[in-house]
Amino acid sequence: MEIKISDFDQMERLYRTQLVNSLWGFRPITLVGTTDKLKNPNLAIVNNLLHIGANPPLVGILFRPPVVERHSLENIIETAYLSLNHITKSFYQKAHQTSAKYDRNQSEFEAVDIEAEYKEGISVPFAKESPVKVLLELVDRKDIELNGTVLIIGKVIELFIDEKLLSKDGFIQHEKAGIVTSVGLDAYYETKLLSRLSYARPNQPPQKLNV
Amino acid sequence: MEIKISDFDQMERLYRTQLVNSLWGFRPITLVGTTDKLKNPNLAIVNNLLHIGANPPLVGILFRPPVVERHSLENIIETAYLSLNHITKSFYQKAHQTSAKYDRNQSEFEAVDIEAEYKEGISVPFAKESPVKVLLELVDRKDIELNGTVLIIGKVIELFIDEKLLSKDGFIQHEKAGIVTSVGLDAYYETKLLSRLSYARPNQPPQKLNV
Repeated sequence: MEIKISDFDQMERLYRTQLVNSLWGFRPITLVGTTDKLKNPNLAIVNNLLHIGANPPLVGILFRPPVVERHSLENIIETAYLSLNHITKSFYQKAHQTSAKYDRNQSEFEAVDIEAEYKEGISVPFAKESPVKVLLELVDRKDIELNGTVLIIGKVIELFIDEKLLSKDGFIQHEKAGIVTSVGLDAYYETKLLSRLSYARPNQPPQKLNV
Repeated sequence: MEIKISDFDQMERLYRTQLVNSLWGFRPITLVGTTDKLKNPNLAIVNNLLHIGANPPLVGILFRPPVVERHSLENIIETAYLSLNHITKSFYQKAHQTSAKYDRNQSEFEAVDIEAEYKEGISVPFAKESPVKVLLELVDRKDIELNGTVLIIGKVIELFIDEKLLSKDGFIQHEKAGIVTSVGLDAYYETKLLSRLSYARPNQPPQKLNV
């Protein structure tokens, strides 16, 4: 049976937060690694990624209004760099714990026991265990006046990936590494491939592709 | 073994498209229902949703540059309304087929055999089979000058949902309906819940929650 929900204004706040956050279905989830000017590391889980384009390779990350301390957002604006580190089944609970409000001088890497990894010539830290790591440079921002959120736009500078995940055509098999997806604020899922489908053309049903 | 990929400029175009599109992991995927001014229906699959906020309930949808015909984008700008219709295992191949370049006067509902549903007082069509349907009103747009894409921002006006999917706290159990997630341009996945986790607080490990 279908129910109709129209009255978002009258909803209890936490109910609305859960409902609207989970409304869009399965979302990417990743750990953002940054440092402040003094090289203090920060690690934060984010589930608001938006693919913006492949050429140049661009991604958006939405941050909540900077009215309270937002360490990651401040670090990105100060240093212009950030890392993305995808999360697997083996450490999603530690990754979730990075969303706790730690003090600015406390490293989330230490607090939640995720090993930091530094790479030559790169200032921001990575999560060593992550099978897909991306270095991004801040190239633009868009402020969403409707609710004060900030869309940071990053360009891919480097990508570090477990070779086993990469298909011949460039496709990344995230499920092979147990990379998780999320719904809403607190639900984590493993996935199973149904299939890849061929490029759609009128009057030609899609074919299943080999991965 | 980890490989490092830096040279995006030198990549073959299709390889880069697959690589960068699949870089962010699992993405929401849904069908956008619109009409033009003459009420001709359109249905298009999109995988570029961004949760923007719960109060007011806002979502972003990124569209590619409007340099060629983009029926959905044009319809949204003309009429200010659109529907989202989540996709299940039972019709993901039909949903994928909506990405074929049909003529403007051809309804994708008919072309791919997805039944259209009209609701009283609402101009845009829904996909009848979808267990989660959302009516959005266009409230803002942000143009991304870096690559000419357009971020449409919609506000949730109404939500139609299979009652069985709704938890007591407002959380939506998409996996219960077989709603799929996607990677890149052509890969579809079913999911399995690992767990929901409690709100994270410093010095307190996350607890598993009942759905």
